[in-house]
Amino acid sequence: MPHNHEAKFIGVAPLNLASAEHISFLINDKYFDECLKTQAGALVCSKKTAELLYGQTKSILLVSQNPHAAVAKISQFFFKPKHPFSGISHQAMIDETAEIHPTATIFPFVFVGPGAKVGAQTVVYSGCFIGATSSVGADCLLYPNVVIREGCTVGDRCIFNPGSVIGGDGFGFAATEKENVKIPQIGGVQIANDVEIGANTTIDRGAMADTKVGSQTKIDNLVMIAHNVVIGEFCFIAAQTGIAGSANIGDRVIMGGQVGVAGHLKIGNKSILTAQSGISKNIPEGQMWGGSPARPFKEHALSLVALNKLAKSNKKSS
Amino acid sequence: MPHNHEAKFIGVAPLNLASAEHISFLINDKYFDECLKTQAGALVCSKKTAELLYGQTKSILLVSQNPHAAVAKISQFFFKPKHPFSGISHQAMIDETAEIHPTATIFPFVFVGPGAKVGAQTVVYSGCFIGATSSVGADCLLYPNVVIREGCTVGDRCIFNPGSVIGGDGFGFAATEKENVKIPQIGGVQIANDVEIGANTTIDRGAMADTKVGSQTKIDNLVMIAHNVVIGEFCFIAAQTGIAGSANIGDRVIMGGQVGVAGHLKIGNKSILTAQSGISKNIPEGQMWGGSPARPFKEHALSLVALNKLAKSNKKSS
Amino acid sequence: MPHNHEAKFIGVAPLNLASAEHISFLINDKYFDECLKTQAGALVCSKKTAELLYGQTKSILLVSQNPHAAVAKISQFFFKPKHPFSGISHQAMIDETAEIHPTATIFPFVFVGPGAKVGAQTVVYSGCFIGATSSVGADCLLYPNVVIREGCTVGDRCIFNPGSVIGGDGFGFAATEKENVKIPQIGGVQIANDVEIGANTTIDRGAMADTKVGSQTKIDNLVMIAHNVVIGEFCFIAAQTGIAGSANIGDRVIMGGQVGVAGHLKIGNKSILTAQSGISKNIPEGQMWGGSPARPFKEHALSLVALNKLAKSNKKSS
Repeated sequence: MPHNHEAKFIGVAPLNLASAEHISFLINDKYFDECLKTQAGALVCSKKTAELLYGQTKSILLVSQNPHAAVAKISQFFFKPKHPFSGISHQAMIDETAEIHPTATIFPFVFVGPGAKVGAQTVVYSGCFIGATSSVGADCLLYPNVVIREGCTVGDRCIFNPGSVIGGDGFGFAATEKENVKIPQIGGVQIANDVEIGANTTIDRGAMADTKVGSQTKIDNLVMIAHNVVIGEFCFIAAQTGIAGSANIGDRVIMGGQVGVAGHLKIGNKSILTAQSGISKNIPEGQMWGGSPARPFKEHALSLVALNKLAKSNKKSS
Repeated sequence: MPHNHEAKFIGVAPLNLASAEHISFLINDKYFDECLKTQAGALVCSKKTAELLYGQTKSILLVSQNPHAAVAKISQFFFKPKHPFSGISHQAMIDETAEIHPTATIFPFVFVGPGAKVGAQTVVYSGCFIGATSSVGADCLLYPNVVIREGCTVGDRCIFNPGSVIGGDGFGFAATEKENVKIPQIGGVQIANDVEIGANTTIDRGAMADTKVGSQTKIDNLVMIAHNVVIGEFCFIAAQTGIAGSANIGDRVIMGGQVGVAGHLKIGNKSILTAQSGISKNIPEGQMWGGSPARPFKEHALSLVALNKLAKSNKKSS
Repeated sequence: MPHNHEAKFIGVAPLNLASAEHISFLINDKYFDECLKTQAGALVCSKKTAELLYGQTKSILLVSQNPHAAVAKISQFFFKPKHPFSGISHQAMIDETAEIHPTATIFPFVFVGPGAKVGAQTVVYSGCFIGATSSVGADCLLYPNVVIREGCTVGDRCIFNPGSVIGGDGFGFAATEKENVKIPQIGGVQIANDVEIGANTTIDRGAMADTKVGSQTKIDNLVMIAHNVVIGEFCFIAAQTGIAGSANIGDRVIMGGQVGVAGHLKIGNKSILTAQSGISKNIPEGQMWGGSPARPFKEHALSLVALNKLAKSNKKSS
């Protein structure tokens, strides 16, 4: 039953705000009723939703196995970030030995050190710093005031939100009675392709080896990644989480907000650490843990129930 | 019994440091005895305190129904921030389509994008960034290295402490096996009048609609406000608190430090969330909650007592 | 039994990576077996380790009472930070009344206010801000985008990692029905010698008196130090910890990551606050506390055991 529309769209909008020129979407079933009322010219949804809607809507139905990803891609099509400067500013300070790709954009008030490299189409906003010998790949976005210190490498298509700091000194000292002797932090940071780093997040350089973040990993704002941490691919790390030194995080790990991971631990692939949990042990692959100190989530939940029950019975008997 | 003083004051000082040329204050009753000894030329206090002090002090008594606020206002009278630069620097990079009020101050090394607006008497310190079409009202202070990305609006008399970031990308991705697809964050941030934002705090732009902060709300350092959060008026949010996406915070809400609020929750007006609490449910108006996961504060306190008791009895029987 | 080697070394490396031109070390006994296999030309270790190794290794043994500190010092010998700019940039904005030592380095895009001082050999990276009358001592390092607002003093040999903010306004307001009146924050910040501050950490200025950090204290990333806090000497404060207003921290205190300390508390010398603990009481000298709210660590540990046991017995009986 082929459609024969010729439709023109100007963007993506939520069900309640969409006009005939918008594409809208159903990702969360609780908004199903809004699909029946939306003015959207088209609607991205699952096959199941499309069957339920068929004949009850004027919207063109765009069926996807992953409507969430489909909407994201459509939204990317309509929305290209525009940058308020182009070219390589003569008000930037670029060392003569740095290699800036001619298609890159360097805003005013940027400092690029000796031997540093900036790849094709990469955009470096004002106030950024790229240290000596550090390299940033192609198609990256460094928003204002990002700092990438010396000896770090960044892949392609990475996004650094404002104020993020890559390669600050790790927290390493040898305590004596008379002084706390600084241990020089001589490693760097390696960031793979397609990584996003949140605003004011900090990723410290390694003490001797490099701190590493794997491809497709997405890190939210105000996160702390300590020296020598190794993070795998496809992880999500929510805001204000902290990962202590030398911890090893697997692939496709999900951390909620304000999680703390102690040093030198191993967090298995596909594990889930719930918000505010305090991880003090290695976490096996595929498990969900919570609480502080964290335990398997079911045990943690049982403790909370038991404690609640105890408090109630104490209250009665008192 | 009117006083007939002609007194000259040079500023506000605490009871133990004040001279005859200082105005001091009693806000916390535990310092009452210091009132009897202070050298302060004048003393701001409640009517009740004044009655207790009358005849026992040389200080002029300045009676107020709200001595705390009175001292704040008097202190403001004596202390006007001085700024180490004035005018509009030719070492700033200001797009020719930006509108800078002639009474505004723009320090060197500031970037102001196309169509941006800066209001009367507003001061923008070095290293700040104001993105395309963003507007900042009158009498605002942007301390060094503040970033306000494109499409944000800021009211009058707002203060942004150094390094705060407004309008960074929200943390939105659609996960697939092969990639985590970025969901373009096309909303902005709206900040009302008389808001203060702490150092290195981050407020993300909305995914589609705007993130909002209401008037008179004060936010401390290193706080994370995620995309689409709406915060009411007259709130206090202490340091290192994180509010996840789409949460709705009422008016006159108080949050202690290091609080976490999960996404999509509704926090009622005048509620109080104690330090380090983890909010996982909607909070009714006017209640105090604590703990992680948080419960009504009394229940939380009972649990702590019950647990303590249990631990002691276990210890004895072992 | 004197050695008669003439050896040349190029740096320090871990046991498994070291070549004959590297100095390696044994700090953690669990790596003892690696000592037997290492190719390192020399090995820093304790007397006890040296006795065990004697005759079983080709490495020169460098015996130290504190091998950790010895390695740190040796590493400092090999590794001198190199800075990608030297001299005083004409692209910096330095007030004519500021005093910059002729041996100091000021990068481009730095702002130095009236009456500010920068000491000998101190290096100030791009994007930094030093406010009016603030002084920074000798041999300090201010990495990019550090902000030190007006009226602050910094000792010698301090290191400020990127994005750290010293002297932002403290969080002080007097609440009324109609407005939250700002209490001017007219104190400063005093930072003693040999202090290190982590990336994006914030230390607020005092309300009336100064906020203070003692000598040899080391503070990690994303830490919040509120107004009027006084921190002693030789402390270690790990990442994302927050210390509320007017708290008084003794000497040689150790705080794990994500600790919260409530306002106006006194934390005794040599106390240890474990990660994620929430300190709501004064802490006596020399004790270890944990949990939220925190208790003496042993009591805290007993509670966790008791709770676990209770949850298990509940589960069986249900």
